[in-house]
Amino acid sequence: MAAEKVNVHLVVQYDGSGFHGFQKQAGVRTVQGELERGLGELLGQGVELSASSRTDAGVHAMGQSVSFRVARGGLPPERIAPAAARFLPEDILAVSSREAPPEFHARHSATGKEYMYLCYRSAHTTLPVLRRNALRVPEKLDVGAMRKGAGHFAGTHDFSSFAGKDDAERDPVKTIFGFGVSEWRRFIVFRVRGSGFLYRMVRAMVGTLLEVGAGSRGADGIPETLAARSRGAAGRTAGPEGLYLMRVFYEEPVSGEGLEGLENIF
Amino acid sequence: MAAEKVNVHLVVQYDGSGFHGFQKQAGVRTVQGELERGLGELLGQGVELSASSRTDAGVHAMGQSVSFRVARGGLPPERIAPAAARFLPEDILAVSSREAPPEFHARHSATGKEYMYLCYRSAHTTLPVLRRNALRVPEKLDVGAMRKGAGHFAGTHDFSSFAGKDDAERDPVKTIFGFGVSEWRRFIVFRVRGSGFLYRMVRAMVGTLLEVGAGSRGADGIPETLAARSRGAAGRTAGPEGLYLMRVFYEEPVSGEGLEGLENIF
Repeated sequence: MAAEKVNVHLVVQYDGSGFHGFQKQAGVRTVQGELERGLGELLGQGVELSASSRTDAGVHAMGQSVSFRVARGGLPPERIAPAAARFLPEDILAVSSREAPPEFHARHSATGKEYMYLCYRSAHTTLPVLRRNALRVPEKLDVGAMRKGAGHFAGTHDFSSFAGKDDAERDPVKTIFGFGVSEWRRFIVFRVRGSGFLYRMVRAMVGTLLEVGAGSRGADGIPETLAARSRGAAGRTAGPEGLYLMRVFYEEPVSGEGLEGLENIF
Repeated sequence: MAAEKVNVHLVVQYDGSGFHGFQKQAGVRTVQGELERGLGELLGQGVELSASSRTDAGVHAMGQSVSFRVARGGLPPERIAPAAARFLPEDILAVSSREAPPEFHARHSATGKEYMYLCYRSAHTTLPVLRRNALRVPEKLDVGAMRKGAGHFAGTHDFSSFAGKDDAERDPVKTIFGFGVSEWRRFIVFRVRGSGFLYRMVRAMVGTLLEVGAGSRGADGIPETLAARSRGAAGRTAGPEGLYLMRVFYEEPVSGEGLEGLENIF
């Protein structure tokens, strides 16, 4: 008789700069590898987890969601996150955990996601203290034009022009609920929320908006770029260092006060 | 006949998290060690530099000043900073360089310094992406009280109550020109400018103000704490991770557009 399993939904943060991406790979340090090792030690059993998104090397998360099944009867699901701290490295934080319905899956159940992309203006050079956490951009960027360009992404579109080439098989039609651009001192903060995102789609959208800000393409050219359905029509892919997976949305709200507000750093 | 030497003033930034402090020590990675090695390779001669301040392990700099003498006739002083990039690691940036008067000394000639101390509010936990660059503080802090407390530091005082114990021999009387406390989203930013600072004095002042913010001491108790001239009268020393040496002031303004603005990230 198979032991009954409980389905656990865990929200984690990590600094992506020390990992070769989320997805487990032999011989290199990955977020999934560290999480499965740490959770396995905590729970005394093998853990295989699914994530809402397999973030690339250097990409950060303030509110990544993962799910996994463990034998019922051990540590209560809501106590897994606080107990995990001493089994995880300092660049991963387990924010909150809960028992999820049996059918819950961190990726398949997601109804939307929010990303932040953080840039700072600097005339010439990458600043040491920000090199792993934000993208350097030129001093002179037209933020109003970028905001106007970002507005053109809102709504339901075929995003093939903004899809990394490894993502040919997924449905390229996605809905962007909102795409904001804000400024604070030298920082420029992009925040985008959508139903789903193709591989490297946020970085391609931000890279394209940065070209709008620099004046090398027009804000009102975005609809035409979308219509082209060709990656070559859009701008460069912005680097991973500025990208943060902020939050994953599900039909059922994520319980746990631990998450609330923790992602709203910028 | 000794070769004529030229005195060079170099402004540098660094991410302090990867160094065992500024000061050279055998067998460990230090800012001074990396700078002297890189500049030595660039200039083809031994370099021994003096810094305005020997920052502790984990402390960052946006505008540290160093000075050193090199044989005249090599690379023009103003070209040292741009040329140094490929001889320095990515966590050190040479911002600008110039020929300084023969009597200039990065530490002895300084007329003032400005520090930033960066905190972020989080209820329970240190956030991975900020762990090396800012101090976690509790959600509920009275910023108005901290601002009032900071105001009491302005002026000329004996700062013995805020001096690290390794600093017994220096003159404890310093002048604080201004001490501001600002907020942005979850960040709390302290900025203090003064004639000079004792060892760990900024961190002791910030640690004391955080106790004011938490309500465990009163803002108007700062004058009494100063008058006590005893380290035990003040609060805890805040951690190194939030401290940034922003700028060093000299009688003669630092030339070079490279510096201007680069330090004003927060």
